[in-house]
Amino acid sequence: MSSHELKTVIAAADRAIMAEDFDALMDFYDEQATLVIRPGLEVSGKEKIAKAFVAITDYFNHSLKITQDRMTVIEGGDTALVLAEAVLETTGTDGVVTTITRRATYVFRRLGDRWLCVVDNSYGTDLLDEV
Amino acid sequence: MSSHELKTVIAAADRAIMAEDFDALMDFYDEQATLVIRPGLEVSGKEKIAKAFVAITDYFNHSLKITQDRMTVIEGGDTALVLAEAVLETTGTDGVVTTITRRATYVFRRLGDRWLCVVDNSYGTDLLDEV
Repeated sequence: MSSHELKTVIAAADRAIMAEDFDALMDFYDEQATLVIRPGLEVSGKEKIAKAFVAITDYFNHSLKITQDRMTVIEGGDTALVLAEAVLETTGTDGVVTTITRRATYVFRRLGDRWLCVVDNSYGTDLLDEV
Repeated sequence: MSSHELKTVIAAADRAIMAEDFDALMDFYDEQATLVIRPGLEVSGKEKIAKAFVAITDYFNHSLKITQDRMTVIEGGDTALVLAEAVLETTGTDGVVTTITRRATYVFRRLGDRWLCVVDNSYGTDLLDEV
């Protein structure tokens, strides 16, 4: 499903992260959405998610670049499970570039003509390593 | 989240599969749910899902045993993403037992006091291998 509309939505959200435009970014999330910051640490609600992204971009020295490589979408009713290879590129203060690829799982809900993210888990099934 | 109520729900669904009680099994699915039968092949709607399970249990010579090992649940609003290690054990006509472990992704929606499965993808992010 390479042409799924959610591909466009997620690309726009990634651009908002890179522009550090967290007001625009929050438009992609449901009010009750949950973000997995790292294994074992989740936050719910737009306010906490926005704060988490401020901390994340700061942590990565404002160098974070995010793209999604391969992606597939499985829709069930008004819900969609998105599986994607998220590619994160960061540049350290020493100029060294690090690239991390994760197999992510995102869940979206359709409200009218919009899709809103309800679960943002870039760690995918790797979270099971911590269970 | 080892004590999450969805663990009990999924265990009951697995028992319905093993008992080949597909009427009972369909009570766990949303009307518009989607089942990934295998990479590249999905069906949506209870009727097609029930037929798929008839074919699946037949294919496995009515020997299919399913359990979920490690499991974690991430809730966002009325939606839950379940990550689980699904263990499938089958016995061939020659008596040889085969065990397959998959890192599965299930999406559930809460309706009142019930959880209904909207996306049943036992292949998890491995589906990206086919993209």
